[in-house]
Amino acid sequence: MRPSGRALDQLRTVSIETGVSLHAEGSCLIRIGNTHVLCTASIEDKPPPFLRNSGMGWVTAEYGMLPRSTHTRSRREAASGKQSGRTQEIQRLIGRSLRAVVDRQALGERQITVDCDVIQADGGTRCAAITGGWVALRIAMNRLMAKGLVTGDPLLDHVAAVSCGIYAGQPVLDLDYDEDSAAGTDGNFVITGKGKLVEIQASAEGAPFSTEDLATLMGLGLQGTAALIAAQKEAIG
Amino acid sequence: MRPSGRALDQLRTVSIETGVSLHAEGSCLIRIGNTHVLCTASIEDKPPPFLRNSGMGWVTAEYGMLPRSTHTRSRREAASGKQSGRTQEIQRLIGRSLRAVVDRQALGERQITVDCDVIQADGGTRCAAITGGWVALRIAMNRLMAKGLVTGDPLLDHVAAVSCGIYAGQPVLDLDYDEDSAAGTDGNFVITGKGKLVEIQASAEGAPFSTEDLATLMGLGLQGTAALIAAQKEAIG
Amino acid sequence: MRPSGRALDQLRTVSIETGVSLHAEGSCLIRIGNTHVLCTASIEDKPPPFLRNSGMGWVTAEYGMLPRSTHTRSRREAASGKQSGRTQEIQRLIGRSLRAVVDRQALGERQITVDCDVIQADGGTRCAAITGGWVALRIAMNRLMAKGLVTGDPLLDHVAAVSCGIYAGQPVLDLDYDEDSAAGTDGNFVITGKGKLVEIQASAEGAPFSTEDLATLMGLGLQGTAALIAAQKEAIG
Amino acid sequence: MRPSGRALDQLRTVSIETGVSLHAEGSCLIRIGNTHVLCTASIEDKPPPFLRNSGMGWVTAEYGMLPRSTHTRSRREAASGKQSGRTQEIQRLIGRSLRAVVDRQALGERQITVDCDVIQADGGTRCAAITGGWVALRIAMNRLMAKGLVTGDPLLDHVAAVSCGIYAGQPVLDLDYDEDSAAGTDGNFVITGKGKLVEIQASAEGAPFSTEDLATLMGLGLQGTAALIAAQKEAIG
Amino acid sequence: MRPSGRALDQLRTVSIETGVSLHAEGSCLIRIGNTHVLCTASIEDKPPPFLRNSGMGWVTAEYGMLPRSTHTRSRREAASGKQSGRTQEIQRLIGRSLRAVVDRQALGERQITVDCDVIQADGGTRCAAITGGWVALRIAMNRLMAKGLVTGDPLLDHVAAVSCGIYAGQPVLDLDYDEDSAAGTDGNFVITGKGKLVEIQASAEGAPFSTEDLATLMGLGLQGTAALIAAQKEAIG
Amino acid sequence: MRPSGRALDQLRTVSIETGVSLHAEGSCLIRIGNTHVLCTASIEDKPPPFLRNSGMGWVTAEYGMLPRSTHTRSRREAASGKQSGRTQEIQRLIGRSLRAVVDRQALGERQITVDCDVIQADGGTRCAAITGGWVALRIAMNRLMAKGLVTGDPLLDHVAAVSCGIYAGQPVLDLDYDEDSAAGTDGNFVITGKGKLVEIQASAEGAPFSTEDLATLMGLGLQGTAALIAAQKEAIG
Repeated sequence: MRPSGRALDQLRTVSIETGVSLHAEGSCLIRIGNTHVLCTASIEDKPPPFLRNSGMGWVTAEYGMLPRSTHTRSRREAASGKQSGRTQEIQRLIGRSLRAVVDRQALGERQITVDCDVIQADGGTRCAAITGGWVALRIAMNRLMAKGLVTGDPLLDHVAAVSCGIYAGQPVLDLDYDEDSAAGTDGNFVITGKGKLVEIQASAEGAPFSTEDLATLMGLGLQGTAALIAAQKEAIG
Repeated sequence: MRPSGRALDQLRTVSIETGVSLHAEGSCLIRIGNTHVLCTASIEDKPPPFLRNSGMGWVTAEYGMLPRSTHTRSRREAASGKQSGRTQEIQRLIGRSLRAVVDRQALGERQITVDCDVIQADGGTRCAAITGGWVALRIAMNRLMAKGLVTGDPLLDHVAAVSCGIYAGQPVLDLDYDEDSAAGTDGNFVITGKGKLVEIQASAEGAPFSTEDLATLMGLGLQGTAALIAAQKEAIG
Repeated sequence: MRPSGRALDQLRTVSIETGVSLHAEGSCLIRIGNTHVLCTASIEDKPPPFLRNSGMGWVTAEYGMLPRSTHTRSRREAASGKQSGRTQEIQRLIGRSLRAVVDRQALGERQITVDCDVIQADGGTRCAAITGGWVALRIAMNRLMAKGLVTGDPLLDHVAAVSCGIYAGQPVLDLDYDEDSAAGTDGNFVITGKGKLVEIQASAEGAPFSTEDLATLMGLGLQGTAALIAAQKEAIG
Repeated sequence: MRPSGRALDQLRTVSIETGVSLHAEGSCLIRIGNTHVLCTASIEDKPPPFLRNSGMGWVTAEYGMLPRSTHTRSRREAASGKQSGRTQEIQRLIGRSLRAVVDRQALGERQITVDCDVIQADGGTRCAAITGGWVALRIAMNRLMAKGLVTGDPLLDHVAAVSCGIYAGQPVLDLDYDEDSAAGTDGNFVITGKGKLVEIQASAEGAPFSTEDLATLMGLGLQGTAALIAAQKEAIG
Repeated sequence: MRPSGRALDQLRTVSIETGVSLHAEGSCLIRIGNTHVLCTASIEDKPPPFLRNSGMGWVTAEYGMLPRSTHTRSRREAASGKQSGRTQEIQRLIGRSLRAVVDRQALGERQITVDCDVIQADGGTRCAAITGGWVALRIAMNRLMAKGLVTGDPLLDHVAAVSCGIYAGQPVLDLDYDEDSAAGTDGNFVITGKGKLVEIQASAEGAPFSTEDLATLMGLGLQGTAALIAAQKEAIG
Repeated sequence: MRPSGRALDQLRTVSIETGVSLHAEGSCLIRIGNTHVLCTASIEDKPPPFLRNSGMGWVTAEYGMLPRSTHTRSRREAASGKQSGRTQEIQRLIGRSLRAVVDRQALGERQITVDCDVIQADGGTRCAAITGGWVALRIAMNRLMAKGLVTGDPLLDHVAAVSCGIYAGQPVLDLDYDEDSAAGTDGNFVITGKGKLVEIQASAEGAPFSTEDLATLMGLGLQGTAALIAAQKEAIG
């Protein structure tokens, strides 16, 4: 029934390649089917201004799409002079999701910026960015720990994200572009390694949905993020 | 236990005053406790460019806060030269929420812009904007119908929104600013007159939350929006 | 002869409601007929950079129109990314007018920002903003004095403003929108409680005017601002 | 008493050199003492969008200062990414002043842009721009007439401008920078060849002023613009 | 002598992988040592506005660096709201270089945009972008030809680019970052398959250089681009 | 053969008038035929932020064209909100060219900004700006030396620039607008008083060119800059 022939609760093929950047303190290229996102974590030794002398650090995220990561070329945001509302919404979500599993006291007065750049898009880019962004952040945190710059691990748990939605009347896991553009309801589930919720966003694209629908999608989301967290574990060895 | 002394499932006092604008095709001033939002609906007789010759219309929303609607003065977005990511995220949410109950075919090739301007803020401004924005839109739609410009009612149902969260370990309905800034989990529930879900956003501000927490908040959200929809009905007579 | 039926030298109904903002140090909603402007004064405990260590303070103003305060919806300046030339011209005028009656030495190293937001427009918004802005400023100054933060009153006199023009060949006081858009000559008169001039701007919209015309308009301006200053006195009790 | 040794009612030396631009349809370099402004008029054969198919034309103005036209270097507006409020206010004034003597019906559906660029500043740049801008416009209009592109003269009268103010307690004509920065009251008088008023702006920089002061400054303004108009006549031969 | 141990006239390892984008009409990932640039060519079926009804097409280029492609993280241009002067200079160079070998008449009224995004930077990114951009363009042109949309080949020749400079007193080919940041003279040579020059830019970073130095660098440039063109040929098979 | 009737290796008439600005520390108006550029040098007593406490100074340049310096009016960059890529490219070139002959240690911790504003354009504006900018800089340096603010001369040599190109198949010196817009190859040669190269940019506008062509143009460039440097010497006396 799905355009890709996947089972309703089947993720696309997941691959997370680490160490893809010569310069970044942490990096990975995450591929969820044809959605490819390059994630890098960059450590700065000072916190943002609002945290100076607070003893605490910050983790933030930026998101971008290469102009031809999409079916038809999108305008380059640097050329149009501003980031779209969608871009800002997504990068705020990534930042919140990652900070939810960071002990900012343990991190100390430094800032880590996680850049998530979509090299190729086929639906689910924000979820891939969260899942891959966590891996880049994990590697950067490991480096801080290996250098003895932090005492204790500032990263408290895994976090991963997946989209679920109602496509052709059926609840499906991990929507690709064809499904996403036709889905009646679409949600993003950001979930920790302990199966706790960090952020849930579900939206009726067509007809409003029921609380039962939400519960079903939530179940798929828990299943999907568990598999993604297993992939994270494998990637960081 | 709540700073305001309200019961856990108690809304703030709700007041919706209609016809507050001399010029707008629909308008109201919604007051949810100390949160006051002026909502106006403006009809344009042509659709946005991407809908020309489609036979369909569009409903969009814009959101703003007056600089001193907040505890300390915020910078005026017109002066800073751009809308913040938060503003864009909120106005996108308002627009999606209202469009979920609009029959865009019945509306025909016109655009209605719902402006939601926060005169005074005390938490929950985006939810008040959706609830009040619906009233302004309803009045504008009534005007189109009264003039015979549309056949059938392009507005299919009510929609209202309320925030719920976990404050001091307890699930509470309709957070005010004091609660909002201290809440562990915070969610916005956008729900129709038939009790269907249009959009759910729940986010862990502190520790991640459980699916049981989400279910509890959902229950409060259904209760709160039902009361708000009753207030909408009373307002439009 | 006037569209509103007013006498040539008759002001519209004036109402100034104070204390309309929960948060601002001074506030009022001024209504000059159908022109409604919300004015708030916000005190900051440090001066702008160019006055650091000068012993002197600053009063500045910002002006905005809600998108649907006008007959047809105007574009939101925050969305268009800049304030129009008209907006900047008006807020510079409001700031100069208020500073003309402020003893900046007595104010000390702090800044007061007066925000004037047009809720509904029917001509004369800049004049209403000056007249109402003074009331908000007066209340904020009273608060500084009550707290013993200033010695002596930093506000030296009243200031109020009114527009006068030549409409249908006749000099008229306090133009509303219908008159303003058809007036041959249009002027704004900013005048103190002692009847001294702070700023005069008169402009030929159609044919150039004579010095006699200007003198006539000046007389109306003095009469109108005297009445507005009486209303200010009543408002602040 | 004046820093320059001039009499109270004495203009600076005025020189208007025409034909200074190889490309522009009309041009002059106006020198009022040490204030030098290059004015060019550029004709476009189509009107601005809001006048299409109206049968009428438009005259608009732009104003700029070279970065080192001032005592200390000012930031280049093109580099800072926007025109200041002052720049916009001035170019709006120039445009209004010139349009006051243009028969836009006779001009027909075309637009003339008058660029006024300050090469060197010593006070009174906006007045010099109006006076010189008129000369550039006159020459461009002559060209339209010589080519038979308009029937009748679209330029109805001269217009010129001068600043007058109260310096060291005395009313003075044509303030230079030293006087301007110390003046208690400062006004700009835009006046036609027939001695009619196009625009009056007078502002208290220090203490508010009286209606008698304004009348005195007005007299100086009439005298000064009459002399400037004589210089315009001489320049265009 | 070179930090990398390369001979003075030795290129870094070159790899050009084609078909790396699911969506673009032409694409490659070019790697010149540690400099990696993703190049995509996107065809639009209409020309830019200035070429409408001219019978001719256009090729343009855009360039960007991912924020952490560099040693320390650079600010994202989309977030800072504008492209730097360096970025604009580079993308103008890429566009000119590619257009030099395009028959715009044969291309017909369409536009091809070549996006060059630096995934990882180690010197020479603009040259890699030209060399790889040509490959993406070649593939897109092949697609137009295969579909019969053009008659004849609109791409007249190869074009490739390499940097050469004087490092530690010696002329060297293909500077990496360590060499580039210390070079006394640095030049970029854009050369066709026939060994003709498209663009030469040579600049003294330290002491001015002689015409003999330029001739030596030119020789290296011819040698280097010949090798790069061989790599292009191999890549496109 | 040339539209102007000049010999192939003939410069246009060169005139450099110094001391044209009342305020700038150094200034000249350079005229190369009908290309007129006003150059001013402004000294600031502190360096840019990146050189604080380095003991070194900086020389930078800005470039602009008056809107009607060109055949048809160009849009004012201050109004369009940004400098074009062309403008930025040119001002970066001017800055690099001037810095190549500055001893930044001898200059000490100060910054000199050279503004080059094109009053009238007829081709070769960037070269005129470099040649004239050097004169303004020389005069400003002389002032620093005369005041004893620097020990030794921070300006090590002359620098001048000229364009050469292939027009109608012939190599020509100092292209004017008519030649420039039709030239097959166009280059800018920035050369010191000792005949050393600071920057070479040569670009094929039509067909690619040969190394022999480049050598010929280089010879013209050396000849032309030698003549321009003679004019610089005469101008500064």
